[in-house]
Amino acid sequence: MVMQFLLIANIKCSGSLSGINSGDIADFVTYCNTNLLKKGAPSGGGAVIDQWNVAGEKIKLKLVSDRYVRVHDALLRLKNELTKLLGKHRIGLRGVEIEDYRILMDWDEDWQLKKLPFVKTLKQERGTLTLALDVDESALANRIPDRIVRLLEDKKEAAKWKGKSEHWELLFESEKKPFYFDKDPTEEMANRCWIRHAAGRGQFVYGPQITKIFRAFERILFDEIFTPLGYEEMIFPKFVSWDVWKRSGHAKGIYPEAYYVCTPKTRDPDYWEEVIDYYKVTNEVPVDMIMKRIENVGGMCYAQCPPSWVFLQGKTMPDDILPVKVFDRSGTSHRYESGGLHGIERLDEFHRVEILWMGKKEQVIEHSKQLRAKYRHIFDEILDIEWREAWVTPWFMAQEGKAGLAELREVGTIDYEGVLPYSAKMLEFQNVSVNGDKYPKGFSVKLQSGEQLWSGCSGVGLQRWAAVFLAQKGLDPDNWSEKFRSAVGELPEVFRFL
Amino acid sequence: MVMQFLLIANIKCSGSLSGINSGDIADFVTYCNTNLLKKGAPSGGGAVIDQWNVAGEKIKLKLVSDRYVRVHDALLRLKNELTKLLGKHRIGLRGVEIEDYRILMDWDEDWQLKKLPFVKTLKQERGTLTLALDVDESALANRIPDRIVRLLEDKKEAAKWKGKSEHWELLFESEKKPFYFDKDPTEEMANRCWIRHAAGRGQFVYGPQITKIFRAFERILFDEIFTPLGYEEMIFPKFVSWDVWKRSGHAKGIYPEAYYVCTPKTRDPDYWEEVIDYYKVTNEVPVDMIMKRIENVGGMCYAQCPPSWVFLQGKTMPDDILPVKVFDRSGTSHRYESGGLHGIERLDEFHRVEILWMGKKEQVIEHSKQLRAKYRHIFDEILDIEWREAWVTPWFMAQEGKAGLAELREVGTIDYEGVLPYSAKMLEFQNVSVNGDKYPKGFSVKLQSGEQLWSGCSGVGLQRWAAVFLAQKGLDPDNWSEKFRSAVGELPEVFRFL
Repeated sequence: MVMQFLLIANIKCSGSLSGINSGDIADFVTYCNTNLLKKGAPSGGGAVIDQWNVAGEKIKLKLVSDRYVRVHDALLRLKNELTKLLGKHRIGLRGVEIEDYRILMDWDEDWQLKKLPFVKTLKQERGTLTLALDVDESALANRIPDRIVRLLEDKKEAAKWKGKSEHWELLFESEKKPFYFDKDPTEEMANRCWIRHAAGRGQFVYGPQITKIFRAFERILFDEIFTPLGYEEMIFPKFVSWDVWKRSGHAKGIYPEAYYVCTPKTRDPDYWEEVIDYYKVTNEVPVDMIMKRIENVGGMCYAQCPPSWVFLQGKTMPDDILPVKVFDRSGTSHRYESGGLHGIERLDEFHRVEILWMGKKEQVIEHSKQLRAKYRHIFDEILDIEWREAWVTPWFMAQEGKAGLAELREVGTIDYEGVLPYSAKMLEFQNVSVNGDKYPKGFSVKLQSGEQLWSGCSGVGLQRWAAVFLAQKGLDPDNWSEKFRSAVGELPEVFRFL
Repeated sequence: MVMQFLLIANIKCSGSLSGINSGDIADFVTYCNTNLLKKGAPSGGGAVIDQWNVAGEKIKLKLVSDRYVRVHDALLRLKNELTKLLGKHRIGLRGVEIEDYRILMDWDEDWQLKKLPFVKTLKQERGTLTLALDVDESALANRIPDRIVRLLEDKKEAAKWKGKSEHWELLFESEKKPFYFDKDPTEEMANRCWIRHAAGRGQFVYGPQITKIFRAFERILFDEIFTPLGYEEMIFPKFVSWDVWKRSGHAKGIYPEAYYVCTPKTRDPDYWEEVIDYYKVTNEVPVDMIMKRIENVGGMCYAQCPPSWVFLQGKTMPDDILPVKVFDRSGTSHRYESGGLHGIERLDEFHRVEILWMGKKEQVIEHSKQLRAKYRHIFDEILDIEWREAWVTPWFMAQEGKAGLAELREVGTIDYEGVLPYSAKMLEFQNVSVNGDKYPKGFSVKLQSGEQLWSGCSGVGLQRWAAVFLAQKGLDPDNWSEKFRSAVGELPEVFRFL
């Protein structure tokens, strides 16, 4: 792709430049154009000073470059050299004013770009995109132009995948199993008062019977996975600060689905008196007044494992403790799901046991196979459900807003799906993922040997397990396998209503 | 307290009133002043039409009242009668414009009122408070003036308690116990990598050792309380919508301490594209842009039991299922605590097992005594700690911003406190509360017999138990009681760092 960068900058100096021999400046420009601004670029590439002008205390420069030694990098190189040159005349650099910054590139996309950050004007015609940027020197130091170019590449990639379905490839399919139910388990549980829709969107209160079923799922995880495979329990944070989501990559795309968390700007009671008074006088919560008094600091747990990495952040571990296997079941996850009622199959608030392992590449891959064997045993022998495994777009790519095929066959996500007989739809009810070195890299966790640390995770959604199990087997324990019936025990009867 | 209300209203009619005999209107005013606006008031009290004037299609009225049949109630009564009178002339009422509304009352407070909702001007002098209100007819129908008066009473009450300490009265004190530790357990745990401060304020990641201790606390609750006393587990919601906090009373005062939850105004990816682009170009999360795209819908779990009442909301239960005993341990609680580092003693994010029972008054009181006996056994015989019980301001009063003494001896909160030897401070580590009929009333839950339904709750903070236990006994299991050591089992060693 052809790309051109243009920059007009006014460099302000601490004194008049009239005393400097104009030959010296011409030599400096020649040095830049033949050497300094070419270093590292392929032959014929790099930046040049296209025009220059010295007047009073100012040097005006027009820089032009291709994608190598882009004009903002060229400006930085040049400033350092210029500082040395002027230093001999006891003149310093006072600042740089960016008069113009333009990017031109090939652009064959048939969709329209609307608005881009730091872009004043945007022209898209005859196969060329021209951007005029609104940037100052510090924006250039922060490499804003480079990130705009990368953003455009992201958008092209996203457009390519738009409308296409996610990658999906069958890996394994269980035997056919008998179904004993053809209704929607959510409705049936609501009728029996096992659950009740709570005050929030996609949120339920779970009564004693279904809670006991969830706890039986957990007990199966303990007996079949945690104890035999040597897992230990940890407690992962449930509020997730932006810093975590920046490191995990979620800050790239989580926004439309996040439950946002905001904290008071101050705890001072006087600051809140007006809000309290308003509520007491109207019996209405003044959300607009509240919005002005709080600030967004992150969100509620979305993917569960990312905030746990803070435990290891910046640390180096000895290789001999690997593989490490931990799990967390200490709280809720929240996603702003699409509207409408979905029952317990698709919830805004749900409960998940998050399973996390780490080790060297081969250990992590090997362990994911062990886990898959254990799950197969649980689904075939204990829950006795019909299910399948599919290779899909890795979850962290999906959550960063990236689509498409996983390039690697080692890093990626396996989704587990089961049919819901009442709707004949397939429901994804858990996953097993090998995440490569993504998290150790994002949170700077290292091994003593210097080898790459890898990790994997698997999220068991209790409501999703229940949705598939109950849809296939129904709410009557007589239709459950002997093993599962005994894992659950007697279903408690606590409440009755008139 | 002397109180006076004044109202000037312009009633607009659908036609000219010139055709109505002025005697009829005078009769109407006399009827109002001697009968209609006096009904229900003590002799000499009530409202009067002080001035009245008919011009074209308008009737202008000046109403004056004391605290009985306040002028806005008087206006409502009068409008109904006037509708009948004018109806005979085929004239209807088109609307009421409130020209002036004033409240005058005795005010001996020595502190200054600043601002009040719906109050245009506020004058506080020579023992009298004068409020000029900015209200329309619908605000009067919503009884805004009554609520302003109640708010002023609240503020007087709060001012009375300001600076005074909460009610505290010793109920019971355990024997002295040996202490084996004089350090801050948070620091010691951090040194040993049992915990690490997470990315959020007052938030930790809990490693395998301390998590195993927390789970031992839970196992003790199961063995000593849940199983013998017939408790069943439920799962309570962890996002709390404003509707719940309106019913629980928290909407009256939770604001300075809440963790607020906001949801996207829409899930439409286009709506969020600018935010995503900005992040990708700057690597900074644009919280200001986010704040404009989200709306506040409630907060994160604060008191744990309130959202569970939605399960029962509006229902009637047969008496024979009582007492009902349930608990929840399905997630985190969040409070915006005062600044500074407090370790695990005072956290923004913590884990609590919430114990909830309900029944008739005597059942609820009786059960709270059973629970207290069980706790006493746990603290004396298993944890072997030094502790005490105190009768304090009920938790729900404190959380509604109310201070002072509990009037009743049956409804109220018992705090459990233990000394932290390293700081010699007392830490409240759990409570047992009898909440009377507060929650059944707030969520409209009834008994078939018509008798009052009561409830109680007890929150076991896992971090608080750990803070007191570890501060007194230390991190070395050799100094723990045999019973607790065996409840915990071996402390797992999973991670090591260089």
